[in-house]
Amino acid sequence: MITTTDPRTGVSAATDLEKTSPEEVAAIAALAASAARDLASLGREFRAEMLDAMAVALEGSREQLVSTAESETGLTAARLNGELSRSAFQLSLFASAIREGSYLEAAIDHAGETPLGPQPDVRRMLVPTGPVAVFGSSNFPFAFSVLGGDVASALAAGCPVVAKAHGSHPLTSALSYETLLAAARSVGAPEGTIGIVYGQEAGTRLVTDPNITAVGFTGSLGAAEALQAAIATRPEPIPFFGELSSINPLVVTAGAAAARSAAIAEGLFASYTGSAGQLCTKPGLAFVPTGAAGDGLVSALASLTDDAGAGVLLNSRIRGSFDAIEGRLVEAGARALARGREAEGEGYTVPPTMLETTATELSAELAEECFGPMIVAVRYDSIDQVVEAIGRVPRSLTATVHSEPDEEELVADLAASLQPFAGRLVFNGYPTGVRVSWAQHHGGPWPATNTQHTSVGVTAIRRWLRPVAWQNAPAAVLPAELRDDDLSIPRRVDGVLVLPTR
Amino acid sequence: MITTTDPRTGVSAATDLEKTSPEEVAAIAALAASAARDLASLGREFRAEMLDAMAVALEGSREQLVSTAESETGLTAARLNGELSRSAFQLSLFASAIREGSYLEAAIDHAGETPLGPQPDVRRMLVPTGPVAVFGSSNFPFAFSVLGGDVASALAAGCPVVAKAHGSHPLTSALSYETLLAAARSVGAPEGTIGIVYGQEAGTRLVTDPNITAVGFTGSLGAAEALQAAIATRPEPIPFFGELSSINPLVVTAGAAAARSAAIAEGLFASYTGSAGQLCTKPGLAFVPTGAAGDGLVSALASLTDDAGAGVLLNSRIRGSFDAIEGRLVEAGARALARGREAEGEGYTVPPTMLETTATELSAELAEECFGPMIVAVRYDSIDQVVEAIGRVPRSLTATVHSEPDEEELVADLAASLQPFAGRLVFNGYPTGVRVSWAQHHGGPWPATNTQHTSVGVTAIRRWLRPVAWQNAPAAVLPAELRDDDLSIPRRVDGVLVLPTR
Repeated sequence: MITTTDPRTGVSAATDLEKTSPEEVAAIAALAASAARDLASLGREFRAEMLDAMAVALEGSREQLVSTAESETGLTAARLNGELSRSAFQLSLFASAIREGSYLEAAIDHAGETPLGPQPDVRRMLVPTGPVAVFGSSNFPFAFSVLGGDVASALAAGCPVVAKAHGSHPLTSALSYETLLAAARSVGAPEGTIGIVYGQEAGTRLVTDPNITAVGFTGSLGAAEALQAAIATRPEPIPFFGELSSINPLVVTAGAAAARSAAIAEGLFASYTGSAGQLCTKPGLAFVPTGAAGDGLVSALASLTDDAGAGVLLNSRIRGSFDAIEGRLVEAGARALARGREAEGEGYTVPPTMLETTATELSAELAEECFGPMIVAVRYDSIDQVVEAIGRVPRSLTATVHSEPDEEELVADLAASLQPFAGRLVFNGYPTGVRVSWAQHHGGPWPATNTQHTSVGVTAIRRWLRPVAWQNAPAAVLPAELRDDDLSIPRRVDGVLVLPTR
Repeated sequence: MITTTDPRTGVSAATDLEKTSPEEVAAIAALAASAARDLASLGREFRAEMLDAMAVALEGSREQLVSTAESETGLTAARLNGELSRSAFQLSLFASAIREGSYLEAAIDHAGETPLGPQPDVRRMLVPTGPVAVFGSSNFPFAFSVLGGDVASALAAGCPVVAKAHGSHPLTSALSYETLLAAARSVGAPEGTIGIVYGQEAGTRLVTDPNITAVGFTGSLGAAEALQAAIATRPEPIPFFGELSSINPLVVTAGAAAARSAAIAEGLFASYTGSAGQLCTKPGLAFVPTGAAGDGLVSALASLTDDAGAGVLLNSRIRGSFDAIEGRLVEAGARALARGREAEGEGYTVPPTMLETTATELSAELAEECFGPMIVAVRYDSIDQVVEAIGRVPRSLTATVHSEPDEEELVADLAASLQPFAGRLVFNGYPTGVRVSWAQHHGGPWPATNTQHTSVGVTAIRRWLRPVAWQNAPAAVLPAELRDDDLSIPRRVDGVLVLPTR
């Protein structure tokens, strides 16, 4: 039997959910494989309508979803409502991308004479890989769980999804699944388009099931390694797209510290303590110059931290890790600077915590990600020290620079130095709050995620697709999008990108 | 010291090449990392000019390259000249793709109000991953070796390359490297843009070097697994793009057998014996219907096989494997049908060989790839038998269907059944001879290659790129292609694909 725990109180309760048996996992994956074939024949417009229906269904279940998630995650209703809106928006955005059709990367090379002699007709397009297993995170019950980017992008691609319910929010997972399932059925999607399994063993079995063709994962490096080890036992490797830990360095230049240290302290405080610091894009290292302006920024941030109340962490494991990691950071030489007020009661609470070190001292040990409201101020004497220090720590999803307009050359050099170490470069803002849009990239380089793809934004769909080429195919065999008479999507024809005419 | 062997005679000779020491490997990889930074700042047009210069340089060294490769591979001058032309063409094609700029997947989402509230400016583009290690194949000294698709696509992406010289053609590798190096220097490319290492240990060390960011490989499953094991010892995983074994089933429908069995026998014979059958796209299984028409096709192919002379295999290992695999196939139940004439002398020669089995008997053991002039005819009673049998054997780079115009429905169903099992579907042709073009796909489902990418065609460049997003970046920090005033490449602006205006 599966239990659920309210992290605000530490009180557990039984649910009527059961762990999925090995036989059930196999049956669910097999049904997903059957759905993959049917989905393919239903085409893009059907899938777009299904995604739109799912977006509507999320709104219909909003109240129940938010209240369930509140008591399973301790996240605020405001945050959860925003997250649900984001997931609904994402479904609609992906529906529009599927309709637009560029994601297919359709290309036609007609037969003809070439510098290498006569060549056959070759046409290429991306097709869905097949059923996808999705492992969501504890901290995003609606954005990276049974609802969210991985599921939406896989369905958009045409891949059925089998989600693993998160152990920290099983009831939210179940309700999310039921909401998606009802929406899928309402438009006539094949049974097996969306599935769910419960329990860690079921999850491990899922990624070794022969019908699963790719895995999406958001969570810790350790959990990812366990899943990858299971995947490695398969006779055939399958892609694993993992969005793992990230330390997210933020650099304040001397100019920025001099010009607006109070504003940056406030922004940084909000960014590192929002959602109790449980965001993969939370700034974990803040590089602040030595000297008076930097001192002012650090003491303003320390003062905001000291005055703050405790936040609620998602579960007892994360709560336990917070203290353990803080201990390791202090052991490695970090100095305690500030700590907010402790909360009373049995909940998994922790006060915002600020440590300090220097750029010359910074090591991989001092850059361990602490999932929760923790930030390490890193004092530096020169930008060279910053660049060297960032080269010594693991790479990240993001890197952020705060600077002033008259530091243009410094910022260009710094951005070029940071680019190999991060997937997204943020200027005069904060890395938390990831825009869901066409141009977004949330990933790369390792360990921030698999190097070459994103888990947020329209191009997240590319992870669940593989190319197929057709050589001298009769028109009846070709997908509609590759026939000469289809002018509805952008295609590359004989090397030239051609926009649709209708 | 490194030796070279002429497979036509089995005679070995010394070279003045030396195995690369561990220190030299590290220095070469470090120089490549330095070149990566310099290449980035030189921009796309510079790289396109470098690729064009390399294409010209190949022509300049044509005679020497072909004669060197002839004596190291036993491939004919005609075949080698064609292969060299293909590699030169490919360099020019990639240069045009780099100039065109779509490969960057540039996208701009301007800041503004959205259904989720105000959002920042986000811009995305692909950037080179960094130095790439390339391991070429024995059978394509110019198309998949120090010259060829992996090297050309990585350089096109902006990634310096360190190639491992192939043990079967070290002198060809050295001359290829010198040709590329001279061309790179002639346009002022940074030192380290192209490098080479010699010896298996140097290759293993190369893929574990911290400066290497991705690996391209063309060769056997066994060699790939050894390299992947070495890569797995790295603290950070890097992408491995392997183009491995492939059995390439070909299906002759009843209609096609009845209409043109002699022509298909001739085409099939040429396809399975060309380059002595040493092509990853060689049809290894030919499904032929039972009955008189199929009997006629099989006996015509057997007769061509019986009459044929021996081919020269690339090296003693491949020659030894041929006999071993033939033995395993017979052990597994395949029946010998035809065998060409043996050659005299000490060369690594083997006559074309034809075996036979049935669709109901076909197993993974009977579908082992034999690298050389070997084909297994698979007799079938119904298309259902064919589909079931293909489901039992490893997946492939290609699948081919020969049919007649009045079998449209049968062919559409068959193509849909074959699609999950192959990267390229060929109709009324042969899988050997891979067009180098925009729409080509040479890859797809494991073990044919890494699932999601190609090693031939323009999109091969995508393997060596990763996305980066810039949020609220000052124009001076952005790559030229992401600035508002750059209208030279296709970009997606606020969700709309916009073609260049100049």
